[in-house]
Amino acid sequence: MLEQLPTFDLAIIHCGEVLTLSGASECPKRRAELADVGLIRDGVIGISGEKIAWVGSETSYRQLGRAKREIDAGGKVVMPGLVDSHTHAVFAGSREGEWEEKMRGASYLEILKKGGGILRTVDATREASPEDLLNLAKETLKKMLSYGTTTVEIKSGYGLDLKNELKILNVIQRLKDETPLDVVATFLGAHAIPKEYLNNSDSYIDLVIGMLPEAKDHAQFCDVFCEEGAFSASQTRRVLEQAVKLGFQVKLHAGEFSDQGAVRLAAEFAAVSVDHLDVIHECEIPLLIESGAVGVLLPGVSHFLRMKEPPPVRALIEVGVPVALASDFNPGSCPSFSMQEMIHLAVRNFNLSASEAISAATINAAHGLGMASSVGSLEVGKQADLLLLDIDHYEQLPYYFGMNHVDKVIKNGKIVYS
Amino acid sequence: MLEQLPTFDLAIIHCGEVLTLSGASECPKRRAELADVGLIRDGVIGISGEKIAWVGSETSYRQLGRAKREIDAGGKVVMPGLVDSHTHAVFAGSREGEWEEKMRGASYLEILKKGGGILRTVDATREASPEDLLNLAKETLKKMLSYGTTTVEIKSGYGLDLKNELKILNVIQRLKDETPLDVVATFLGAHAIPKEYLNNSDSYIDLVIGMLPEAKDHAQFCDVFCEEGAFSASQTRRVLEQAVKLGFQVKLHAGEFSDQGAVRLAAEFAAVSVDHLDVIHECEIPLLIESGAVGVLLPGVSHFLRMKEPPPVRALIEVGVPVALASDFNPGSCPSFSMQEMIHLAVRNFNLSASEAISAATINAAHGLGMASSVGSLEVGKQADLLLLDIDHYEQLPYYFGMNHVDKVIKNGKIVYS
Repeated sequence: MLEQLPTFDLAIIHCGEVLTLSGASECPKRRAELADVGLIRDGVIGISGEKIAWVGSETSYRQLGRAKREIDAGGKVVMPGLVDSHTHAVFAGSREGEWEEKMRGASYLEILKKGGGILRTVDATREASPEDLLNLAKETLKKMLSYGTTTVEIKSGYGLDLKNELKILNVIQRLKDETPLDVVATFLGAHAIPKEYLNNSDSYIDLVIGMLPEAKDHAQFCDVFCEEGAFSASQTRRVLEQAVKLGFQVKLHAGEFSDQGAVRLAAEFAAVSVDHLDVIHECEIPLLIESGAVGVLLPGVSHFLRMKEPPPVRALIEVGVPVALASDFNPGSCPSFSMQEMIHLAVRNFNLSASEAISAATINAAHGLGMASSVGSLEVGKQADLLLLDIDHYEQLPYYFGMNHVDKVIKNGKIVYS
Repeated sequence: MLEQLPTFDLAIIHCGEVLTLSGASECPKRRAELADVGLIRDGVIGISGEKIAWVGSETSYRQLGRAKREIDAGGKVVMPGLVDSHTHAVFAGSREGEWEEKMRGASYLEILKKGGGILRTVDATREASPEDLLNLAKETLKKMLSYGTTTVEIKSGYGLDLKNELKILNVIQRLKDETPLDVVATFLGAHAIPKEYLNNSDSYIDLVIGMLPEAKDHAQFCDVFCEEGAFSASQTRRVLEQAVKLGFQVKLHAGEFSDQGAVRLAAEFAAVSVDHLDVIHECEIPLLIESGAVGVLLPGVSHFLRMKEPPPVRALIEVGVPVALASDFNPGSCPSFSMQEMIHLAVRNFNLSASEAISAATINAAHGLGMASSVGSLEVGKQADLLLLDIDHYEQLPYYFGMNHVDKVIKNGKIVYS
């Protein structure tokens, strides 16, 4: 005899394709598993309270289930909310003129001499009041949600002094409380050398180390921009040694423009993620596996900055590094927060398949935040964070590019965008 | 003494930047003029009925003007509706799997052998009922409008026999009547060699010539895909000779993958536009100027198909060829109809400035359709087709990429999207 299911608060019915991304909550998808989106055709998702209570076929639901309320997905695609595990979403000002100059051939140095570059954003962010910063960021997160991002990591790093770094971390804290998104905070005091310390970066590192105890109250992760013109491997190590002592988990910017050996530090400090990886040395790839870190690829940056060579994506996947995709949303190197566009660019530029890119933007990205037990897939007991898309097949997500395919966003069991 | 303005039906007030694109309704923007978006800061647009009645400063409006209704643009950017002068928007089916294979290295021929490519879309479009085709296309045009396209050209060319070409042209006719957009029809019977004529393309050209008289009742333009694997220059000439006799104006697909000498034909037949131009010979550029045709660039295609070299855009501009941008929306080579994305890609890949790209997507595109006296700029007497964008400066349009910045669309003086 068939057993009735409990009455769900909400059921998403008539899902032509449900991408469950199931089976990888314990360990991120690697190699072949990356290509498995856990597809259920003609599926239904049952939601009770804020959690997913059931995922199964329309036929079973018709026989066994009922819900207080049903939403018809119209035979289209339903998938987990997108997880953007690397952004710099709290800042003031924009730098569109600078980009146009870059596209016409201006060098980074020429732009810096004109007062452009990252320090322009630092100036604008320092000048902005906490309320103004919060309002700007709320507007950003509201739009992110409309593009399907339900979990977002945000780094500090446009303050570059204690007062302003804490101002940003406080804004991130308020975004957690005042928006529907899951917001994860990362302290990135070591984002750039502020103008006060231009010829004295070691002293700035001292300052960053001094910021760590207060930053710890607001941020789960500590990150360092280990890069030529930013911070060396030994400076990075100094920050991380102290950060780990204080209980931070580690993320790292590694190999965006040059290889400073950050991957070795990732292994040393058991980094949760290592991000960028555009120009890492092949010999470092085994270290990445050893570190256990998720490799976060940022296809929007290499697109926006017209980087000639893609990162060694296939090599990373082949050896078993779990890869994630993120936007890196920021005014200098990627002014887009559309994770759908990142999925498109990952297929276009990094040779990922649609299913690999979707795995990378959901469950693997959740691992990159240590949140895979609660988000990133549609499995019983996880948060009911899901997207109803206006496409017939999931392969159309990267294919129909430059457009937003989100019809509805459900976050913790509630419709937050329609 | 100041004279009062007439009372407008509608005024768009508090426009931080109005891009008028004025001064080029008679002749398209060329060279330096391309960089002039006709910027008015703190402007107001007065609309009476379906037309623009006044464009001026907020200060003047406050002194002299009033309106039955005002819309507050919130200090943001207001610009003419986007003109997409090259699409294949009436078709059935999609080809996402094929694109993924291409990205993984499959050749055009391998895909064709598996039954893929353009003839797959022809099969699906032939099978579709007129009602189904109409409903698909209406959905497409509704979304186009939400991305800011207020005027769109649509080509036939997935029927490839009289009955099915007329079916498509009839759908385009109904789109004119049943959507808010201005829709321009182009007969492209010579789009591909249908499977019935694979080894006998000359006979298919005979058939196309036979279709012309009936097609003329539904289409203003005649276009030919002059390309290796499609139609030769001499076949193209045969079609155009007859088309021009019947009163068609001419558009041409030229130099997408190979140079078949179509530009010479453009001069010969006084083409209104010559489209693609990715691989034309330098010696043909003077012919382009001679033809007077608008050069329509399709940056979505070269992006989507990963074409290695951009078209000689700067050379075209330098010698005075007026350039336009279009999406080429179609399931094989550009499944995006976001003209905003095309503007981004034109800056990213073709080295246009933001203002050049915006001129190319508005007033010059209108010239590419022979419609510059009614659309493409915000000038008194023209159709009140305009966009309220959620950006602070027009240079942000290409900069914040992969996203839709349209807040409201006004078409013929009425809000059609908000």
